[in-house]
Amino acid sequence: MESRNIRLAVIPGDGIGTEVVAEGLKVLDAVGTKIEPTHYDLGAARYHRTGETLPDSVLHELRGYDAILLGAVGDPSVPPGVLERDLLLRLRFEFDHYVNLRPVKLFPGVRTPLADTPPEKIDMIVVREGTEGLYAGTGGAMRRGTPHEIATQESLNTAHGVERVVRYAFEKAQSRPRKKLTLVHKTNVLTFAGDLWQRTVNRVAADYPEIAVDYSHIDAASMFFVTQPERFDVVVTDNLFGDIITDLGAAIAGGIGLAASGNINPDGAAPSMFEPVHGSAPDIAGQGKADPTATILSVAMLLDHLGLSAEAARVEQAVADDIAARVAGSAPRGTQQIGDDITARVSG
Amino acid sequence: MESRNIRLAVIPGDGIGTEVVAEGLKVLDAVGTKIEPTHYDLGAARYHRTGETLPDSVLHELRGYDAILLGAVGDPSVPPGVLERDLLLRLRFEFDHYVNLRPVKLFPGVRTPLADTPPEKIDMIVVREGTEGLYAGTGGAMRRGTPHEIATQESLNTAHGVERVVRYAFEKAQSRPRKKLTLVHKTNVLTFAGDLWQRTVNRVAADYPEIAVDYSHIDAASMFFVTQPERFDVVVTDNLFGDIITDLGAAIAGGIGLAASGNINPDGAAPSMFEPVHGSAPDIAGQGKADPTATILSVAMLLDHLGLSAEAARVEQAVADDIAARVAGSAPRGTQQIGDDITARVSG
Ligand SMILES: CC(C)[C@H](C(=O)O)[C@@H](O)C(=O)O
Ligand SMILES: CC(C)[C@H](C(=O)O)[C@@H](O)C(=O)O
Repeated sequence: MESRNIRLAVIPGDGIGTEVVAEGLKVLDAVGTKIEPTHYDLGAARYHRTGETLPDSVLHELRGYDAILLGAVGDPSVPPGVLERDLLLRLRFEFDHYVNLRPVKLFPGVRTPLADTPPEKIDMIVVREGTEGLYAGTGGAMRRGTPHEIATQESLNTAHGVERVVRYAFEKAQSRPRKKLTLVHKTNVLTFAGDLWQRTVNRVAADYPEIAVDYSHIDAASMFFVTQPERFDVVVTDNLFGDIITDLGAAIAGGIGLAASGNINPDGAAPSMFEPVHGSAPDIAGQGKADPTATILSVAMLLDHLGLSAEAARVEQAVADDIAARVAGSAPRGTQQIGDDITARVSG
Repeated sequence: MESRNIRLAVIPGDGIGTEVVAEGLKVLDAVGTKIEPTHYDLGAARYHRTGETLPDSVLHELRGYDAILLGAVGDPSVPPGVLERDLLLRLRFEFDHYVNLRPVKLFPGVRTPLADTPPEKIDMIVVREGTEGLYAGTGGAMRRGTPHEIATQESLNTAHGVERVVRYAFEKAQSRPRKKLTLVHKTNVLTFAGDLWQRTVNRVAADYPEIAVDYSHIDAASMFFVTQPERFDVVVTDNLFGDIITDLGAAIAGGIGLAASGNINPDGAAPSMFEPVHGSAPDIAGQGKADPTATILSVAMLLDHLGLSAEAARVEQAVADDIAARVAGSAPRGTQQIGDDITARVSG
């Protein structure tokens, strides 16, 4: 990796996606790596121009990159779900991003909506499965539009798919000081899938005697995120439950403007993809209001994934310092200003 | 109804269920109605004694009551999920409790874990579908225990099932001052089920021109519950999403000790069942520590459902007064004490 440039595919996408990605790239440039970005215009604009969401040729090209940085996709002018499914979810599935890694961490200086909750109480990482469950998209409708309509959705879970993400989560837990892993599911209702998840966790746990293993139903976990976030260190969960609790996690850790994520293929068989948890936010798009911090933290995750851990740490530190320097009550800075301020800290 | 006694089946169940139900019955007695309770010993004890969870003969008897009051079911000595599914969920399904009604309301004087959130910001009611979706229990496993295992769960949604609960939610919204209804789903991923829910809401909305209709994905809604709970007035959602957000709702409204619910059959074809949202809490069972307020508020819902709205209002007011009189920092009262205090307010 040291000898050649690292090739990064950049998909700014829609709405605020383009704005925040520009700042992410600024920071990436300032941190001084041999990363060479190539832009892809996927998203609503291309869809309207050509009808394409993710042409096979582009998918094939993307496969050749070392990593992908994505802003956000989705626009009110496109039928709901089309870009999400045919672009975002398709990338996650085609590139077998079976780990969707989402830190939930309260930076000192950030205001959480939770009363009396200091940063040390919110410091977990959610390992969300990224390629199965209800996201498989299987199901159907019969007698659609009639009083006898029936619509189904299927959650598909495989031993292969569950075990690999559970192992990843145990490895993560092993690398963290608290060494605790919590499975979040709904085993008392989703008995078939829950049984597979619970048995898998039990079996893999035998290989990690140092890890304290816990279980929480998704409903109880949602409550604990708010009342006792300190219960959690590493959380492993399925695709849909992970979707829900990471938005909740973003909320308690100070908002969606700070929540980073990585869609990871740990085997390296395809490029991993890093993106802020937030969406394209059409309501504030084009106004320079979006907080690029989530994207910049996703860039830090990307650097870390590429083995550039010193650079990753510098970016994370710059973000932490920027946040700590925010003065409560002062006028909010715009997208570019935040990007410039963090860039200055990275360079300086 | 005035001429004969109202027949109430009481299922205290397991753990703290028996403790909190005793207090609920005290209050019911004090409010002075012609309600005649009959106890049923369903739960872990009966399961161990006879192997039965819900014998058909008991189910048949229960059908003859005007309403059911349930404490909580579930015990560590019983395989996980057995009592939940074969007793609690079976009652909901057999009695076609298609509305699971769960108020999320912050009483003045209750500490919410959310900073700077006054009671007027948390006042919604969740109308959770109670008989379909992923709770149908369909699915299966193949090659169980092998590396090639596959486990599925199916979400079943019918026009019949969705429309009736959506109509109920619109009626609820119509009766409330804010007249707002929010559908919570995940239409961009659960496309078949989401399409049915969204089309149903759109269609029924035409009959309720005064209602402002909104939509939120479950992930965003979970975030908004914490950051902007005032967005919500009436929430209508499916069985699983409703399970999750009502626990989250209980958390923001001051805890599971205060969260009441009704499993309602609005057609009156079978008895409706009222229960606190909390579980049997084996960790604190038998210690007289559980807060019976959730059960007492469930009793208020029960009275209201039986047409005894003045009595219901008296119980709710007694609870509100009891909560307002709680002195921050003073020693916590036990289960019976809280029950006695609220009973005194109801009688006095
Ligand atoms: C846009 C949507 C399909 C996506 C998901 O549900 O995974 C998003 O909510 C996320 O969490 O990345
Ligand atoms: C005990 C369990 C089956 C139940 C549910 O999931 O509905 C509970 O969580 C609830 O919300 O009443």
